[in-house]
Amino acid sequence: MEIRKNETQLVCIAKFIAKEGEVDQLIKNLHSLIPITMQEGGCIRYELNQCIDEPNRITFIEKWYDQVTFDAHCNKPYIVEFFNDGKPHHVKEFEVTLHKELLP
Amino acid sequence: MEIRKNETQLVCIAKFIAKEGEVDQLIKNLHSLIPITMQEGGCIRYELNQCIDEPNRITFIEKWYDQVTFDAHCNKPYIVEFFNDGKPHHVKEFEVTLHKELLP
Amino acid sequence: MEIRKNETQLVCIAKFIAKEGEVDQLIKNLHSLIPITMQEGGCIRYELNQCIDEPNRITFIEKWYDQVTFDAHCNKPYIVEFFNDGKPHHVKEFEVTLHKELLP
Amino acid sequence: MEIRKNETQLVCIAKFIAKEGEVDQLIKNLHSLIPITMQEGGCIRYELNQCIDEPNRITFIEKWYDQVTFDAHCNKPYIVEFFNDGKPHHVKEFEVTLHKELLP
Repeated sequence: MEIRKNETQLVCIAKFIAKEGEVDQLIKNLHSLIPITMQEGGCIRYELNQCIDEPNRITFIEKWYDQVTFDAHCNKPYIVEFFNDGKPHHVKEFEVTLHKELLP
Repeated sequence: MEIRKNETQLVCIAKFIAKEGEVDQLIKNLHSLIPITMQEGGCIRYELNQCIDEPNRITFIEKWYDQVTFDAHCNKPYIVEFFNDGKPHHVKEFEVTLHKELLP
Repeated sequence: MEIRKNETQLVCIAKFIAKEGEVDQLIKNLHSLIPITMQEGGCIRYELNQCIDEPNRITFIEKWYDQVTFDAHCNKPYIVEFFNDGKPHHVKEFEVTLHKELLP
Repeated sequence: MEIRKNETQLVCIAKFIAKEGEVDQLIKNLHSLIPITMQEGGCIRYELNQCIDEPNRITFIEKWYDQVTFDAHCNKPYIVEFFNDGKPHHVKEFEVTLHKELLP
């Protein structure tokens, strides 16, 4: 069977490791981005998760309509502000990866 | 609290009541639309359901990026063919409703 | 190809037609159920929608882990209270249907 | 605002880095697990993704009803077989992390 790919949409996995003692504030900052981001038309999924074995590891699982709407998201003032201000205070490691879904 | 609406995306509920004896063929026809539709970039959700108490009632629950991608879907040859050919044979009642999601 | 069904999970479509002039209050009541319901372990999806052409038509699209967790939801005090109190005030028509998903 | 957690459900991110030249076979193996896994009652989400910048990186994004249904999944013959047979042939790095969702 041929593996079909969703060529338009983007899946984003954004992993943050909080600095010692900063995870609650990091969660609060990231969580506050959810309602405003979900109003962006291109936002298909925007779910915040905390790792069970490693509670300082916080991961957004995101799905976006396309590269354009994802880029627009990254340039929203609330996202820019988090990366300029919240992230340097609370985050010691950060990884973002972009993916294409291989459909069922 | 203000109720925020997703102004871009469309939620579509498409209900089909199969003619007597036609539900298996209707399901087969509708099910065959899933893999090809999920490759459309605007398709966020395309899930087929069978009513438990009324097994002739088959419902697609759909979410689309916007009106343009939904309209493009409706004009795909496989959808047009279903409505021209499969639907008259197998369906006795049909209702489609479009919705805006009221976000959490 | 065989059509496979999710035999465990339940899809619920709950349609409410608001009485004239009551839709805003109905939406407010239903919307307030979202955060508390999403904390129920069996809740897989709980999305509120407003029909575009018929704004008095409000629909919950729900997915539950199984019949037991759905029944538990229906017996939660906040749901019982809505059906005893909010629904008679604001709703003139109500239909709930339960479905099994036919998997991709 | 209090951050509410889904205490029942599990989010699993399973990352595989394919050995050189093995990614197509790895994708084929993992993709074949989708339809059978989606029939497990506890499976809420089971989506396969390929990293854009690093195509040898393949990630399942999963959501499960609870620890019990996740453990049951891990013990299914098709999963055990993949980890005993497919994984050693095709995978050079593997990481699985379990998460709790922090609800909107």
